[in-house]
Amino acid sequence: MKNAAVLGASGYTGEEAVRLILGHPKLNLKAMTAHSRAGESYSDVFRNFAGQDLPPLTTLDEVDWTEIDVVFACLPHGASQETIAKIYDQVETVIDLSADFRLSDPGLYELTYGRPHEFRSLLGERVYGLTEFARDNLRGAKLVACPGCYPTCSMLALLPGLAGGMIEPKSIIIDAKSGVTGAGRKASLAFAYSEITDGAQAYAIGMHRHAPEMDQAIRDFAGQAANVRFTPHLLPMNRGMIATCHVNLTEGTDVAALRKHYKSTYDDEPFVHILEKGQVPQTRHVRGSNHCQIGIFADRTPNSAVIVSVIDNLTKGSSGQAIQNYNLTQGWDETLGLGYVGVFP
Amino acid sequence: MKNAAVLGASGYTGEEAVRLILGHPKLNLKAMTAHSRAGESYSDVFRNFAGQDLPPLTTLDEVDWTEIDVVFACLPHGASQETIAKIYDQVETVIDLSADFRLSDPGLYELTYGRPHEFRSLLGERVYGLTEFARDNLRGAKLVACPGCYPTCSMLALLPGLAGGMIEPKSIIIDAKSGVTGAGRKASLAFAYSEITDGAQAYAIGMHRHAPEMDQAIRDFAGQAANVRFTPHLLPMNRGMIATCHVNLTEGTDVAALRKHYKSTYDDEPFVHILEKGQVPQTRHVRGSNHCQIGIFADRTPNSAVIVSVIDNLTKGSSGQAIQNYNLTQGWDETLGLGYVGVFP
Amino acid sequence: MKNAAVLGASGYTGEEAVRLILGHPKLNLKAMTAHSRAGESYSDVFRNFAGQDLPPLTTLDEVDWTEIDVVFACLPHGASQETIAKIYDQVETVIDLSADFRLSDPGLYELTYGRPHEFRSLLGERVYGLTEFARDNLRGAKLVACPGCYPTCSMLALLPGLAGGMIEPKSIIIDAKSGVTGAGRKASLAFAYSEITDGAQAYAIGMHRHAPEMDQAIRDFAGQAANVRFTPHLLPMNRGMIATCHVNLTEGTDVAALRKHYKSTYDDEPFVHILEKGQVPQTRHVRGSNHCQIGIFADRTPNSAVIVSVIDNLTKGSSGQAIQNYNLTQGWDETLGLGYVGVFP
Amino acid sequence: MKNAAVLGASGYTGEEAVRLILGHPKLNLKAMTAHSRAGESYSDVFRNFAGQDLPPLTTLDEVDWTEIDVVFACLPHGASQETIAKIYDQVETVIDLSADFRLSDPGLYELTYGRPHEFRSLLGERVYGLTEFARDNLRGAKLVACPGCYPTCSMLALLPGLAGGMIEPKSIIIDAKSGVTGAGRKASLAFAYSEITDGAQAYAIGMHRHAPEMDQAIRDFAGQAANVRFTPHLLPMNRGMIATCHVNLTEGTDVAALRKHYKSTYDDEPFVHILEKGQVPQTRHVRGSNHCQIGIFADRTPNSAVIVSVIDNLTKGSSGQAIQNYNLTQGWDETLGLGYVGVFP
Repeated sequence: MKNAAVLGASGYTGEEAVRLILGHPKLNLKAMTAHSRAGESYSDVFRNFAGQDLPPLTTLDEVDWTEIDVVFACLPHGASQETIAKIYDQVETVIDLSADFRLSDPGLYELTYGRPHEFRSLLGERVYGLTEFARDNLRGAKLVACPGCYPTCSMLALLPGLAGGMIEPKSIIIDAKSGVTGAGRKASLAFAYSEITDGAQAYAIGMHRHAPEMDQAIRDFAGQAANVRFTPHLLPMNRGMIATCHVNLTEGTDVAALRKHYKSTYDDEPFVHILEKGQVPQTRHVRGSNHCQIGIFADRTPNSAVIVSVIDNLTKGSSGQAIQNYNLTQGWDETLGLGYVGVFP
Repeated sequence: MKNAAVLGASGYTGEEAVRLILGHPKLNLKAMTAHSRAGESYSDVFRNFAGQDLPPLTTLDEVDWTEIDVVFACLPHGASQETIAKIYDQVETVIDLSADFRLSDPGLYELTYGRPHEFRSLLGERVYGLTEFARDNLRGAKLVACPGCYPTCSMLALLPGLAGGMIEPKSIIIDAKSGVTGAGRKASLAFAYSEITDGAQAYAIGMHRHAPEMDQAIRDFAGQAANVRFTPHLLPMNRGMIATCHVNLTEGTDVAALRKHYKSTYDDEPFVHILEKGQVPQTRHVRGSNHCQIGIFADRTPNSAVIVSVIDNLTKGSSGQAIQNYNLTQGWDETLGLGYVGVFP
Repeated sequence: MKNAAVLGASGYTGEEAVRLILGHPKLNLKAMTAHSRAGESYSDVFRNFAGQDLPPLTTLDEVDWTEIDVVFACLPHGASQETIAKIYDQVETVIDLSADFRLSDPGLYELTYGRPHEFRSLLGERVYGLTEFARDNLRGAKLVACPGCYPTCSMLALLPGLAGGMIEPKSIIIDAKSGVTGAGRKASLAFAYSEITDGAQAYAIGMHRHAPEMDQAIRDFAGQAANVRFTPHLLPMNRGMIATCHVNLTEGTDVAALRKHYKSTYDDEPFVHILEKGQVPQTRHVRGSNHCQIGIFADRTPNSAVIVSVIDNLTKGSSGQAIQNYNLTQGWDETLGLGYVGVFP
Repeated sequence: MKNAAVLGASGYTGEEAVRLILGHPKLNLKAMTAHSRAGESYSDVFRNFAGQDLPPLTTLDEVDWTEIDVVFACLPHGASQETIAKIYDQVETVIDLSADFRLSDPGLYELTYGRPHEFRSLLGERVYGLTEFARDNLRGAKLVACPGCYPTCSMLALLPGLAGGMIEPKSIIIDAKSGVTGAGRKASLAFAYSEITDGAQAYAIGMHRHAPEMDQAIRDFAGQAANVRFTPHLLPMNRGMIATCHVNLTEGTDVAALRKHYKSTYDDEPFVHILEKGQVPQTRHVRGSNHCQIGIFADRTPNSAVIVSVIDNLTKGSSGQAIQNYNLTQGWDETLGLGYVGVFP
């Protein structure tokens, strides 16, 4: 058993981490922090935890770090790196769910997030935890940067084809859609019920912070130079993310070969499932679970394909992948604590 | 380990039973039947099970009953009693989720469901599984009739006050609201997305089949003669049920005393939680879990109170309570396989 | 043609007033105020007005009141009375959509709204605009207090039966449900999409500010002393309100007689429709319209009935009724500008 | 005044036509047909019409065509051409909302819709009613084929740039999303509330019937040979459609120039609005209206742009555009009966 702390437990990714840790056979939830809600019981912040025996919410300063083995940091970028730097030497493992350690190039980080990276030595140590492509690096890692939800969803759809030389890296268009929990838990008119329900929209069109992260993943895991065109949308649903990837196939390949290649690549994966020809992935089927479903389709135009990938943005797209990564750092079965099927309907 | 069969696995309650059995440490899912979908793989019927290793869907005739210890019958009323009668001697335990064995009086069954009860001897053996009030009867039971979702939600809210003589039994009004999954999985214009979303309505006003069942529960568990006025509503949500119970208090009691009585009644319950004064139960906080949350409120008019109870209609209102009941028949910890907190958001 | 000003045009009721005024053949929208958004174009505040030729949003001080015939005040209570007092002598008619002039007794106002009423002489002049019961008073009125949404929905369901002596006034229970727009347009975690969707809850249980207003309406329009038990709920939908009224019938009447009485009472009403036996009102059928649909049902228990009424809380429950009232003050056809059928789906 | 008949009035597009005709100052609704619901009153089929004075639903045979000036045919493809052929000589104008007369090439029709076109001479007479690009042809037209909802939404976004030579015609990717009403009104498990809400998915990936129609529109209105890559999605909302068009710009142009060109193209349009830089179109803002909002954005990659267009699929995407087209055939102001702003929220 390892003792876990969740930092930023009053947000949705923090809460999802708490939910998953409570069901994990080798994790003991020892501390939860939430700056603005410190002192409250967790069930006052998230009433779904009524009746659970949980530690109180505290500030960071109140945590006895000597008791903590692993930290799941669910903090905003900027705050995350500062906090991690402070406690880094006192804990065994840090799983960071923020954006702070995703980009290996601090210059690109500054360009993308509008502030310099203050902890470059940590950056050098971190492992980028796109689980299915990073297992070798994850074993024994001390600092894991969990990918963004859009990169996770999109890269699972694209990397096998790119690594296999079957997809043109220069003309990738990712049209993605997310549920509203991706925006976090906050009082905001833009995310008020009546402003969101029964409608849809794109946002951050042309430049979303996850786009450079995808280019990096394509470079690091597929050895290709890419410059993805990425447009996210906000949909009237809680959880769920769909990446519709419009790609051109390289000379000599076709969709049947592509699907076969994906099936073989992901054959032993516990959480990534390539659907049969004609089966369409739906976000609702992965709700609340760590699973990803991928469908591969020919377009009516020659040499082009559509690859559709769905995940739960809070689980595989965030806290579920975080747990999966931690399992791997410990050399445990990576499915520990993640054996949920989607809650449908 | 016990071997389980789920009958009617292509419906929502069947599917919820499957989901819970997969996470149960002492149950092995051995067979699943679905008349109209026999021969299909379960993930073709419910794509959220993609990647799971499951038995195929079969007809009832294809099941080898000698392998089955416990049957979870998620069949329509009528079909349920017939099927159970056929297999009753071949299995150890039958947990019935239909309405067929809920009413102990076959005459009332016929009046309510429009067809005679054909298996009165079985009816005599059945235990009515409103768990929190039926534990003594459940231990060792062979046939358990799980209550309807509305009776479960409403009786948890009303029985302590009625049994304690604090609530007038003659003037109870239950205004209940359910998510759409309560209607089952079927092609029906009335339950089409565009006919349901962004709107609400009452239905079965004046006479819903669950009303006589509530009168029976009040008689059997609180020793009172009641004739509840019950009006259900259909809300634009998937899962979730709320029973708003408008009651008159008996002479000499008040809401503070009532709340105290409920807190003491349910103090050790793993799944029933009395909220603090002022806290309002919300269906979304019990989504996907076996929990029930209850709030007790004074009305501005003298001697009247409002008791609000929320459950997930598919879990505590159906398949979750079914598992809980089965655990008790076996003398197991009743929370086995039910340790989920609500999936919120 | 009359010139209209909408005060508080950045809220949902203000916006609905603007929408209806734009379609009104005898109203010219001359001014719109919104304290916090003054200076912005209306389509920046509500993008659905893109392409419309509208006056800019201003502060109250910037309005040239000499140009204004009628003011639709969509301000918070407190702010409303102060503003109306200031401009009262400069305009011809004031239609107030706030709570400030609903209660005729200033003591009750203070008790209910937690602040003294500062403009009692105005209070003496106001007409309470529950349209269908107030037509005689509305003709020529200068100050109209539009009822709350819950009182409108509930009183249309109850007053005919109470006035006709067919409903017991002492045991009325109103279990009401509202869409989220009833909470107004604001940044608030409680009304964030992810905190509202796919769930339901009661609120303000035991004492909602609209309850005393209903007692007043029953006294004034039906001549009965009542003390309604009123419990509102918040549903995951935008617009729509449903009042489920649980009533006891007086000796010698029954539901058939009650329905006949309602049909005859509302026979000539353009906006109130008594449905046939068995037809259930649904909020979605009045969405965006000024219509009210009412169904009357026998309960299975003797001498009790359920009367269900649905409206759009922003239209008949607020700005639509406001326009209807203004039409009547002018002696116009009261349906002017309100000829919309519900936008379904 | 002209007398109108709506054929197929029991579907959603038929109903939307009825709603709009009722508010049209020069149209008199004389007949409504609905094969399967003939004999019912319209308010039994769509309860939102309760209290309206409407003709009954009849079969086609019961219509007295000599009384009808204009037919709005809201029938399934196949049935539409047969019906129109039968009545063509008896009426003045036919506005067809089906797919039957959209494709000018009967061979392409057969390929796309899987059945030969039986009325080629009618096909030769028809005008393709993409209003903003077809005004000259519409004046005096007898048979108008209204475009599909996806082509309407997408072509409004693409044609100005293509016609102006600013967009590469060979690499257009349209990632579109629709509300559920686009699937029509029917009992179907795939469109059941619980199968749709809180989730999203693509469908008809690679080959949707509207794709060849878009190629045709680009050829006919922009003089370019295209082969659009089109992927539609189904979103959990009632009304609303969004076309996210990923395009490459031709040499020598940029997004600022593109936006300027669109603004100038659509400057006088009553229903098409080019938003300012940075403003993002949202489907909810055009709900229930005939408006289209378009935003134009630079992508972070060179020479590429994203053009986003939103409409209400039932209004501008179907029945609203149908009315607009009929207005033009008569030489009337094309906005007659369409003066609705979006119903938001």
